[in-house]
Amino acid sequence: FSVMGVNTRPISTQLHAAADYVPKEGEGKINLLIDLESPKVANMEEMSSGKKVFCRCWLSGTFPLCDGTHVKHNAACGDNVGPLIVTVKSE
Amino acid sequence: FSVMGVNTRPISTQLHAAADYVPKEGEGKINLLIDLESPKVANMEEMSSGKKVFCRCWLSGTFPLCDGTHVKHNAACGDNVGPLIVTVKSE
Repeated sequence: FSVMGVNTRPISTQLHAAADYVPKEGEGKINLLIDLESPKVANMEEMSSGKKVFCRCWLSGTFPLCDGTHVKHNAACGDNVGPLIVTVKSE
Repeated sequence: FSVMGVNTRPISTQLHAAADYVPKEGEGKINLLIDLESPKVANMEEMSSGKKVFCRCWLSGTFPLCDGTHVKHNAACGDNVGPLIVTVKSE
């Protein structure tokens, strides 16, 4: 992609990446609650032992950890989302 | 909650839990792709070292791991969801 020999990337690879992306029927915003001002909400978690339960419904009051709100969301919206449970196994 | 002295739980605590739950404006199904037949999609992951990047947009082709599809989803829907990155730190 070059203009007059100058390699110009599209404004944002996000937009470029989206050009060929067709949203699924019913696909809309997932995050209605968490850090809405942030361009992208990614979380880094370090673990050395034990188990943590992480939210994937974007509605938890203890985000990024799960607080069970997905049960209410699923019942209200006919969804089936649940958490990610990560356990550290000592080698 | 009892009927003729017999303690009967509501059909499903999910429905009971949802009775007081008011979905946010725009809150609809999040999962349009993954194990749609399952009543609830929870994933258990064991880690002993290293780093894993987990999907939270429910659109990854490598679910429960992230494959970057959230970038296309965010651009198409004006969302800002991103992955969970878990790193195991040796004690």
